[in-house]
Amino acid sequence: MTQAERLRVAPHQEQVSSIRSIVPRYTAIRRFSEELCANLGDEDFVAQSMPDASPLKWHLAHTTWFLERVVLERFDPEYEPIDPTYAYLFNSYYNALGDRHARPLRGVLTRPTVPQVREYRDSVDASVLRLLDSVQDMQRVELVRLLEIGLNHEQQHQELMLTDVKHLFSLNAMLPRYRQPLPVEPAAPGALGWVEVQEGVYSIGSDSGSFAFDNEKPRHRVFLESYALADRLVTNAEYLEFVEDGGYLKPELWLEVGWSTVQQPGWESPLYWHRRDGGWVEFTLGGERELVPCEPVSHISYLEADAFARWAGARLPTEIEWEVAAARLPVEGNFVSSGRFHPSAAPRSGGPGLRQMFGDLWEWTASAYSPYPGFQPEPGVLAEYNGKFMCDQLVLRGGSCATSQDHVRASYRNFFYPPDRWQFSGIRLAKNRR
Amino acid sequence: MTQAERLRVAPHQEQVSSIRSIVPRYTAIRRFSEELCANLGDEDFVAQSMPDASPLKWHLAHTTWFLERVVLERFDPEYEPIDPTYAYLFNSYYNALGDRHARPLRGVLTRPTVPQVREYRDSVDASVLRLLDSVQDMQRVELVRLLEIGLNHEQQHQELMLTDVKHLFSLNAMLPRYRQPLPVEPAAPGALGWVEVQEGVYSIGSDSGSFAFDNEKPRHRVFLESYALADRLVTNAEYLEFVEDGGYLKPELWLEVGWSTVQQPGWESPLYWHRRDGGWVEFTLGGERELVPCEPVSHISYLEADAFARWAGARLPTEIEWEVAAARLPVEGNFVSSGRFHPSAAPRSGGPGLRQMFGDLWEWTASAYSPYPGFQPEPGVLAEYNGKFMCDQLVLRGGSCATSQDHVRASYRNFFYPPDRWQFSGIRLAKNRR
Amino acid sequence: MTQAERLRVAPHQEQVSSIRSIVPRYTAIRRFSEELCANLGDEDFVAQSMPDASPLKWHLAHTTWFLERVVLERFDPEYEPIDPTYAYLFNSYYNALGDRHARPLRGVLTRPTVPQVREYRDSVDASVLRLLDSVQDMQRVELVRLLEIGLNHEQQHQELMLTDVKHLFSLNAMLPRYRQPLPVEPAAPGALGWVEVQEGVYSIGSDSGSFAFDNEKPRHRVFLESYALADRLVTNAEYLEFVEDGGYLKPELWLEVGWSTVQQPGWESPLYWHRRDGGWVEFTLGGERELVPCEPVSHISYLEADAFARWAGARLPTEIEWEVAAARLPVEGNFVSSGRFHPSAAPRSGGPGLRQMFGDLWEWTASAYSPYPGFQPEPGVLAEYNGKFMCDQLVLRGGSCATSQDHVRASYRNFFYPPDRWQFSGIRLAKNRR
Amino acid sequence: MTQAERLRVAPHQEQVSSIRSIVPRYTAIRRFSEELCANLGDEDFVAQSMPDASPLKWHLAHTTWFLERVVLERFDPEYEPIDPTYAYLFNSYYNALGDRHARPLRGVLTRPTVPQVREYRDSVDASVLRLLDSVQDMQRVELVRLLEIGLNHEQQHQELMLTDVKHLFSLNAMLPRYRQPLPVEPAAPGALGWVEVQEGVYSIGSDSGSFAFDNEKPRHRVFLESYALADRLVTNAEYLEFVEDGGYLKPELWLEVGWSTVQQPGWESPLYWHRRDGGWVEFTLGGERELVPCEPVSHISYLEADAFARWAGARLPTEIEWEVAAARLPVEGNFVSSGRFHPSAAPRSGGPGLRQMFGDLWEWTASAYSPYPGFQPEPGVLAEYNGKFMCDQLVLRGGSCATSQDHVRASYRNFFYPPDRWQFSGIRLAKNRR
Repeated sequence: MTQAERLRVAPHQEQVSSIRSIVPRYTAIRRFSEELCANLGDEDFVAQSMPDASPLKWHLAHTTWFLERVVLERFDPEYEPIDPTYAYLFNSYYNALGDRHARPLRGVLTRPTVPQVREYRDSVDASVLRLLDSVQDMQRVELVRLLEIGLNHEQQHQELMLTDVKHLFSLNAMLPRYRQPLPVEPAAPGALGWVEVQEGVYSIGSDSGSFAFDNEKPRHRVFLESYALADRLVTNAEYLEFVEDGGYLKPELWLEVGWSTVQQPGWESPLYWHRRDGGWVEFTLGGERELVPCEPVSHISYLEADAFARWAGARLPTEIEWEVAAARLPVEGNFVSSGRFHPSAAPRSGGPGLRQMFGDLWEWTASAYSPYPGFQPEPGVLAEYNGKFMCDQLVLRGGSCATSQDHVRASYRNFFYPPDRWQFSGIRLAKNRR
Repeated sequence: MTQAERLRVAPHQEQVSSIRSIVPRYTAIRRFSEELCANLGDEDFVAQSMPDASPLKWHLAHTTWFLERVVLERFDPEYEPIDPTYAYLFNSYYNALGDRHARPLRGVLTRPTVPQVREYRDSVDASVLRLLDSVQDMQRVELVRLLEIGLNHEQQHQELMLTDVKHLFSLNAMLPRYRQPLPVEPAAPGALGWVEVQEGVYSIGSDSGSFAFDNEKPRHRVFLESYALADRLVTNAEYLEFVEDGGYLKPELWLEVGWSTVQQPGWESPLYWHRRDGGWVEFTLGGERELVPCEPVSHISYLEADAFARWAGARLPTEIEWEVAAARLPVEGNFVSSGRFHPSAAPRSGGPGLRQMFGDLWEWTASAYSPYPGFQPEPGVLAEYNGKFMCDQLVLRGGSCATSQDHVRASYRNFFYPPDRWQFSGIRLAKNRR
Repeated sequence: MTQAERLRVAPHQEQVSSIRSIVPRYTAIRRFSEELCANLGDEDFVAQSMPDASPLKWHLAHTTWFLERVVLERFDPEYEPIDPTYAYLFNSYYNALGDRHARPLRGVLTRPTVPQVREYRDSVDASVLRLLDSVQDMQRVELVRLLEIGLNHEQQHQELMLTDVKHLFSLNAMLPRYRQPLPVEPAAPGALGWVEVQEGVYSIGSDSGSFAFDNEKPRHRVFLESYALADRLVTNAEYLEFVEDGGYLKPELWLEVGWSTVQQPGWESPLYWHRRDGGWVEFTLGGERELVPCEPVSHISYLEADAFARWAGARLPTEIEWEVAAARLPVEGNFVSSGRFHPSAAPRSGGPGLRQMFGDLWEWTASAYSPYPGFQPEPGVLAEYNGKFMCDQLVLRGGSCATSQDHVRASYRNFFYPPDRWQFSGIRLAKNRR
Repeated sequence: MTQAERLRVAPHQEQVSSIRSIVPRYTAIRRFSEELCANLGDEDFVAQSMPDASPLKWHLAHTTWFLERVVLERFDPEYEPIDPTYAYLFNSYYNALGDRHARPLRGVLTRPTVPQVREYRDSVDASVLRLLDSVQDMQRVELVRLLEIGLNHEQQHQELMLTDVKHLFSLNAMLPRYRQPLPVEPAAPGALGWVEVQEGVYSIGSDSGSFAFDNEKPRHRVFLESYALADRLVTNAEYLEFVEDGGYLKPELWLEVGWSTVQQPGWESPLYWHRRDGGWVEFTLGGERELVPCEPVSHISYLEADAFARWAGARLPTEIEWEVAAARLPVEGNFVSSGRFHPSAAPRSGGPGLRQMFGDLWEWTASAYSPYPGFQPEPGVLAEYNGKFMCDQLVLRGGSCATSQDHVRASYRNFFYPPDRWQFSGIRLAKNRR
């Protein structure tokens, strides 16, 4: 089975596991993490390209640590870890779970080795499956609930594995390829259209029916003035116009922090664009290739998205505007299971309607990542999962070409800092309507 | 006339100047800036205590520069500045107005001297008053409008002069006094009460009737779930309980960025608190004195306000919640004109109702400083006044003991970064209601 | 009496005070510190332009603090300081004398005011003179010895006052003048000549006859291979050739740390040179003026001096080579008493012989600042005066146009870090001889 | 053949290769680099633990790059590199050889993989051996001369490989072992003795007879006052006394830069010491073990060596004093070929005479790393090998337990920065004699 085939059968089930369905779902998602590294050498698992990124090996071990500390130790007081040092090495940021290895130094952890990490994964998986067999009734409901969080957590790290290896490879003058070169597909997304939404009181957020993180709750009412949303993502061609118009040289287009950011070296275009022989190339997980005009512009910071929107006479949507517009759309698009690992051009418009709302690229919103009215963090150690990051970050919506389709939904809130751009992030415009 | 007397007659008029009233208002506000420095030595005008603060002399010159560049040069094409270098030295952050002296180095500007800055002020004032006499009709309306912005700008810097000189003096082991020692007034604010607001669609923001900054507009509708607001500010006594309960040592109370901030030296209490002989003292503009339990806790960062609220089982209000509750209250309280320059204990509660909503201390809200729906920046160079800072900051409401009473209003949005605490900032709690 | 006249009568006596001569010498040197600030405004005393520099006021107070803590408190156990806080504020780096105000924050000390610092000086001076009257015999010898260190210490700070105010003014776009514009004097120093010294065993360092710092002792023998020393300082014209030959762009000319230093902004010429309209100007204590080719190039770091020497096919002398050559020369030249505060062109050569060895500019040597064989630090707190800085610094020799003539001698060792260049520092070349 | 056996046969031949002997010497030294990594996993080759250290893989590739760029490309104009990107990736600091990958980011180079680096080594080795067969006469002499530099260069990196992997492993809470646990050997080095040297004119430096780096030349005369040198290295027991006497807490013992350094976390003992259960353990290449009192204290910075010497009432020797004393001793001791990779206790003294002068630990001297009188850098690109680092560093002498015996000699000058302590560095005391 080739990598592409393997990826094509990647997990895409219901978002919440029943007691019956959890085992195959667990197995599939855990296996998928390892499939994502199948074509890499052991050396590739070790390196950390910047403090924000982590080594692949660390992702594989940390997601396992999560299951061990959050699930196994809770249900089995006698549980004995395969190595007590792992509790220290693979804690990310949970103060309630003790001290930890310094984040910017994750790249020094050459041990445990890759095979040892695989052994760790196997051992924890065996314990989890054994536990599922043995727990009773009510406990089982809670176990499945926690495992579901663990699996969603693993899916988040699967996405980070892809963005982190992309960043890592981009710093290497050998320009390594994670996958085969990307084919250029003929596409003609057409001119940008606008979809209007009327003013009114709407509800956003997740109700309790299906899995959602605590930060998506509670469902609550909001008032929206009328607005319009662009019917597709901004393309490379459109962004290139901004670059060639001197967009990075005009202070009036930028937020203050944006302007000081683009004074730094390396900020005259999106993260992975480079000038070569008078044209532009883009580094992708399939290697470096010429910029494809009709594809959506990606690896954009909030600061750039905001400046582009201003240049374009528009603005970014709020997360509320985004969610209200997305609420009734099916969760379909270019996800990780395509094996493309790169955004695709929007399909030609077949009339009014939003394209690319899910998959392809996370879409920056103008909304600060804040608690919803009535927000209650998960009880226990998982209180640290989301709530404590609700400062200085902005919400992105919709998932990307590195996201699992069954991981995302209309109410899903991703969040990053304004200058971050190593994620698969892009731009959807909005505007006021009168 | 003593300083206290002079301050008591400080400006407190209508918020918008008519063509007739502008002259006395202009004169009074400009004079007030100089009165605020009346008891200081020339040395005190020079120093910059940190990059966020500015020397007093710089404030006096920059507010003058603002009038020169934004008003005089616009109306009088032949206007000749008293010194062309000032255009460079006293530009704060206006890219449209050219290069400028580096912000963190404002403290090296020993020249122009204090008398030269006074001369600069006099010269610009004379030109402004001459201009007011000479412009005609429609032009005059626009001139008064711009002058009104210039005067509000000056009032903002008057507040900064007080907070900057306080910070400066606090770093000096001689503990200089800006004013006489503060009397301790008997007060008993009583237990914290709560004022409830019902869910519904409300309007916030400024309509066009009176002066407001662009960031307060347009007035627009919002939906609010029901909530309750504390009826007064959090006191020193209440905050001390938090400190003594180990509040600064419990990671579960803090945002991630808060926790990393309080690992730094100097973050075990509010900015100006110090332990002395087993007790606590507080540095004030009247020198160091014992902590007064019934006064509101001040010089609090957002990070601390948020942690305290969590510890107290409450939360911070959003700016929307604050404004809706404040909308019908008179703008009354402990403002700069009291000459106290320090928050006062809340008056004893006379029944249900909000106390201390205006004056005393700016109140941190949980709302990111973002554009309102339909926000339009001021045209021209003043577009840089507010809009470009709408990132990474949080909104504070209500004004402080360093604010001019005729400068603030229910819709007024102040904004600072989460760790900032050299402003007169405090805490009002909120909570959900069911 | 004009400033120039006052300066002309500045101290120039014996280097060691007898018990009789100490009083007029003390009075003259102390007065000279204040004369150096006579034309400045109070604002100019406050600012600190960088962590390496100090405010003028701080220099005036610290030299007084030195007398108080090192002399007065030692001889008079009942001595009561005028303000106990000064012990903390004006300690520079003496761990044995307690905690101190943070060095980079000296610019926040607006208090004590300039008049208060003058009062502090007067008070300490009165105590010193009283003490001189009252101590007996043997004690008096030790008192004069310590006062002599205190006076030499003050002379070092007099030089720093000039270099620090020059640096401060250079950062101000108003380009303030410390003194009248410098006249350009006709001069023709002629081509560079070389003075040879034969190989042999020489003695360097100070013997006990006259005042010297501990770092100049003991006198000891060294072996020197034959060498030649340039007969004057490198001129602006010669250095300009280096600049225009792309000297700052050729890595092969630079030490590793030099090359990384000149990649930073502001390192394409000596510190105070600036390009204006195709030519070069230089900022001086007399304001900005056109570069004078025949004057010696000044405000040069060791890194630049070393690169220039390599470009010129020469090298820098060691401090041993310098001292052996200087040992028999009279200590004459362009010192602070000239009131010029700027290096002068070398006099036309009147035949073989070294010019400009004393005064004009400190001359970088290739010698690390290390202890001499048998070095013994001063006993007591003064052990911290020199010894603890013997790491990472290089020795400069000969004094400058900001040095007092009676402060310097052939054995005198000044020391700064390789990138430092705000001192009056220049280049004398050396080469091997075969 | 076990690792220990392999190491026992490690290269120990003449220091300069004849035309005949170069081939086996080349083969042995090149093979030794790979043997040093024989027990490591591929992951261990990738990580960079700090900017000063490099990944093992990088060392293996860079030493190969050196042969390619400095030797092969010079003799064979048609030489085609196996991968042109390597010229960029594996250049360390040679400006004359073009741009290079940023030093602090060497740990991101997961590609080329370990097998690819081995292939690179094999390919270059084959080309070198082919070249040796084909060049004629005079060219051959120059070829052997450059190869000799290349081999000495490789030996330097072999030492770095050991110190870098030790540092890397030390940061990992798993405390990996590079070799078997170290046996504790009974030893009793006895009390410290002193060996005296009389004053006089001596010659130091290398004459042209055998291989030496440019920085060891020319041989030249120096004058030395009489002095005494400790007859062995300072032991752990002696250093522990210093620690327990509060040595790290007494400012009077430290250089200024030393005192500010030991205010930082992690500076209360030598680099690899840690307190455990009231005692001290030390991290070694054989894992963590209890501190062995009679072994020499290692991983000491210059700053600590200097403070210890002051505490002990002694001082560090100059490099001249060291070399004069070492000149007639045989180059014998505990070198890398012992396979111990750790310093050994000094043998019991058998009468007056210096012990441990070679091997065990590099010995800090008080001498700045400066050019000798008459220093001439190697011509061509190798001018960058030594000369440009002659600033801010101090000389160490004698080699260590990680040095090849045939690499070091009495005139050999190693150099590091004052705070560096990840090398095998220790302390030999000196004192004045009268």
